[in-house]
Amino acid sequence: MLNKQYLYTPGPTPVPPQVAAAMSQPMIGHRSQDFAQFHGEIVGKAKQVFQTTNDLFVLTSSGTGGLETAIANTVSPGDRVLALITGNFGERFAKIAAAYGAEVTKVEFPWGTALDMEQVVQTWDEEGPFKVVLATHNETSTGVTNDIAALGSFLADTDTLLLVDAVSSMGAMDIRTDEWHVDLMVTGSQKALMLPPGLALVSVSPKAWQTIEANSGVRFYFSLLDARKSFANNNTPWTPAVSLFYGLDAALDLILSEGLPQVFQRHARMAAAARAGVRALGMQLLAADDAIASHTVTAFLPGPETAAGDLSKLLKGEMGVTFAGGQGKLKGKLLRIGHMGWCSELDVITAIAALEMALHKLGADVELGAGVRAAQQALL
Amino acid sequence: MLNKQYLYTPGPTPVPPQVAAAMSQPMIGHRSQDFAQFHGEIVGKAKQVFQTTNDLFVLTSSGTGGLETAIANTVSPGDRVLALITGNFGERFAKIAAAYGAEVTKVEFPWGTALDMEQVVQTWDEEGPFKVVLATHNETSTGVTNDIAALGSFLADTDTLLLVDAVSSMGAMDIRTDEWHVDLMVTGSQKALMLPPGLALVSVSPKAWQTIEANSGVRFYFSLLDARKSFANNNTPWTPAVSLFYGLDAALDLILSEGLPQVFQRHARMAAAARAGVRALGMQLLAADDAIASHTVTAFLPGPETAAGDLSKLLKGEMGVTFAGGQGKLKGKLLRIGHMGWCSELDVITAIAALEMALHKLGADVELGAGVRAAQQALL
Repeated sequence: MLNKQYLYTPGPTPVPPQVAAAMSQPMIGHRSQDFAQFHGEIVGKAKQVFQTTNDLFVLTSSGTGGLETAIANTVSPGDRVLALITGNFGERFAKIAAAYGAEVTKVEFPWGTALDMEQVVQTWDEEGPFKVVLATHNETSTGVTNDIAALGSFLADTDTLLLVDAVSSMGAMDIRTDEWHVDLMVTGSQKALMLPPGLALVSVSPKAWQTIEANSGVRFYFSLLDARKSFANNNTPWTPAVSLFYGLDAALDLILSEGLPQVFQRHARMAAAARAGVRALGMQLLAADDAIASHTVTAFLPGPETAAGDLSKLLKGEMGVTFAGGQGKLKGKLLRIGHMGWCSELDVITAIAALEMALHKLGADVELGAGVRAAQQALL
Repeated sequence: MLNKQYLYTPGPTPVPPQVAAAMSQPMIGHRSQDFAQFHGEIVGKAKQVFQTTNDLFVLTSSGTGGLETAIANTVSPGDRVLALITGNFGERFAKIAAAYGAEVTKVEFPWGTALDMEQVVQTWDEEGPFKVVLATHNETSTGVTNDIAALGSFLADTDTLLLVDAVSSMGAMDIRTDEWHVDLMVTGSQKALMLPPGLALVSVSPKAWQTIEANSGVRFYFSLLDARKSFANNNTPWTPAVSLFYGLDAALDLILSEGLPQVFQRHARMAAAARAGVRALGMQLLAADDAIASHTVTAFLPGPETAAGDLSKLLKGEMGVTFAGGQGKLKGKLLRIGHMGWCSELDVITAIAALEMALHKLGADVELGAGVRAAQQALL
């Protein structure tokens, strides 16, 4: 078989040739004036995608490093933290807070559902206030998007900081960092930003800086105070991953030249097509409610007769198509199709076509072309 | 719209990332020992794909330059040449012979049909012998493959040379240069060899060398005698396109590691899927007979109600999908889907899905998913 790969994982995602080419540029000294100017321009572009006028830092780490940065700079041992958990990444966020000695109150919502503000308010009334609230904008493990606007509005007039994981949605969905009152917004490079892994981006509100300055907890590599000091010279405190910065610049150019509204609409349409295709093949969407469905990842249960692992193996082995499996408690039961970044509506059709062929090969009772037709209809 | 392109032209074809990466290697002097060794290895690999033990040369030119090389070295003014024409590229081959002063006898077959040996034999009997016969293995303009084995067998015991254009089939279809008695076999880089344009490959039989040595016609850049002299030192007479040689080496590795039988089978399956999909959408295949259908390009008439130009424009403008149009007398009437080289069975499904969506948008009476289903069934 031709070893041609079709990557539909919700991170990493395919890297556009323009980004790969940009990453091949020669190294420059990261303490040079060239880097300083370039760095300043990148941050300016990233702020447009974040829809923020807050400070923004590009860190050389994975997205988890970005989440740790948010926690490490705002949480000291004993601090009260409210973690709103809708899936595996919500759990990880809570784990990081616990690792930093926080007293974490967890509110867990059933996987496949979104956070429910009524329950948040009730918890707040019974157990609040909290110093920090952790939320996931787009829960990659379940394909659910949470209403951060409502949460931010609820917390806006409190002293509480809102820390949001937007790792798998920034650059794909309409995220209004400032309008939603998000104090620390975190994303990673290898999702809708169309880069290889290795960078995290974190924005910091003025309100957050007060807490960060007063925070006595341990941090070094992830210190935002050091990052801010270096940023005054358009630099980074530690050696940055220069090739990824080159790539980030090119990727942000791609996003901004397509236009943010167009990018958001494309992702909404891809999600609608993926969901229509999956439904038409008789599979069960984990996020049953369209209103909370992620625009970047579609998670589904292949059903009792088809093992997710078999399907996944056949797709990869015979067609070079990679979907992601389930995480945490849904490991082995779920499949997830990533459709973000360097992904077109046509790529979603291709994914559905591959899925129905794989189901057919496994003997499932599917009508060939039915998933594709439903996805096409969702687009036309 | 995301500016992501899906290239289905029958040349150029998509370049694999491995080939693009290989082409980024630093330049080396083309008179160096490094180049000499590398050049020798490339030619050895190319001979496997050509299925030949004849001499083989890699020329820095387009495929047309390769065809001219074949003519310029074997044809002198006044020589009698038989040109077997099944489409636009057969016509071009004849034109080159005429440009070199040959007295060309053309036998033309209706576009969409293959060369007919009975007619060839009849022409031979009435007007032969000829010094040189020109034939096209895979006629890119019509999607027809000619039976070169039969032609070669007919000419094997004569003094006549058989020159074959395999520009759009070498590396995709089972071409037996030696077994078929082909004296000069020509291909180009930008088709199933998965490279950008810029290289032509020409094999030369011992029988052909006698004619070439005796030939008094004009040639310089395309002189095979000079090429042979340089090749004795594993070099080229003029400066070679080194980055394309790097790419050719990587592309030949991809082909040989997939395995020639596997490569041939993949292309046969892609063609069957494309034809099934096109048929199911009610379009007319130009090569109606499956037995002569090209494995690398599928040509079809969208039908009286759908202008080929509108379809092409919509596919490119709204989906980034490029099919090729008609050439010569079929300009504006035909569409051609290239499926060769760095193209998978799934890519063919994608092309058919795009085609049916475009037809639907143009108001054609198509059942969404029907083309995809037929293509899937052809593969399953």
